[in-house]
Amino acid sequence: MSLDPAVLLAVAREEALLGKSEGGVPIGAALFTVDGELLGRGHNRRVQDDDPSMHAETAAFRNAGRRPHYRDTVMVTTLSPCWFCSGLVRQFGIPHVVIGEAKTFSGGHDWLAENGVGITLLEDPECVALMTEFIERRPELWFEDIGEPR
Amino acid sequence: MSLDPAVLLAVAREEALLGKSEGGVPIGAALFTVDGELLGRGHNRRVQDDDPSMHAETAAFRNAGRRPHYRDTVMVTTLSPCWFCSGLVRQFGIPHVVIGEAKTFSGGHDWLAENGVGITLLEDPECVALMTEFIERRPELWFEDIGEPR
Repeated sequence: MSLDPAVLLAVAREEALLGKSEGGVPIGAALFTVDGELLGRGHNRRVQDDDPSMHAETAAFRNAGRRPHYRDTVMVTTLSPCWFCSGLVRQFGIPHVVIGEAKTFSGGHDWLAENGVGITLLEDPECVALMTEFIERRPELWFEDIGEPR
Repeated sequence: MSLDPAVLLAVAREEALLGKSEGGVPIGAALFTVDGELLGRGHNRRVQDDDPSMHAETAAFRNAGRRPHYRDTVMVTTLSPCWFCSGLVRQFGIPHVVIGEAKTFSGGHDWLAENGVGITLLEDPECVALMTEFIERRPELWFEDIGEPR
């Protein structure tokens, strides 16, 4: 991948901050072509739309609209994709995922790598800080978002 | 699970037929509690809403609304869940999946079983016929729905 992962991550981080400003789960994502064209961007909408199916990655994927295939795309997300979002990447054959951080939560990115998906893990301090603050402030919302009962 | 899988499947099949009548991908699903309460039902909405993120299972999950957890639920779907929908089941800890058929398409249900999810595979002739007819009639739409370029 010839794109600069930090440039892609900046878009996902903007989405995460937008989600935070709306009182939502602060995770953002975007889908680009390998040539750097933005296809769709989005953030978690559990709180905003009362919609548990709109994680950041599924929101970005939805906003990109219908495509015959995804072989020429890159997904960027501020946080390691959960199993739901990892399954999205695998099913639709998205060949590369850029991840902001996997320190506060680790989903299915190792499984994706084992299945041939390119993974770029940035461990971005701003992304780590955003999730650390959120999990401390709203643990019940966070654990709801990943389906883990307390 | 004490529920009758055939009774649950009848609801998912109704959803699949509704999707077919709308010109969409004929796959339906529903989320129930283990006591048989219907939480949400839905069908694939790729065509209807131009929304690639609404597979049958994600639509049923969305329509069930926000829940703190899913440990008391059963997902029923007319077709073996793709990786995206299998990831949904795993992430949210849905303990049991009832599947109409896995003859025309096999997704992640073996992986779910390996990870402790109960799987009931019915191989229902009506579900097989519905998908067989659809794949023959609209192959380009079917392969788009599972992200497989032709």
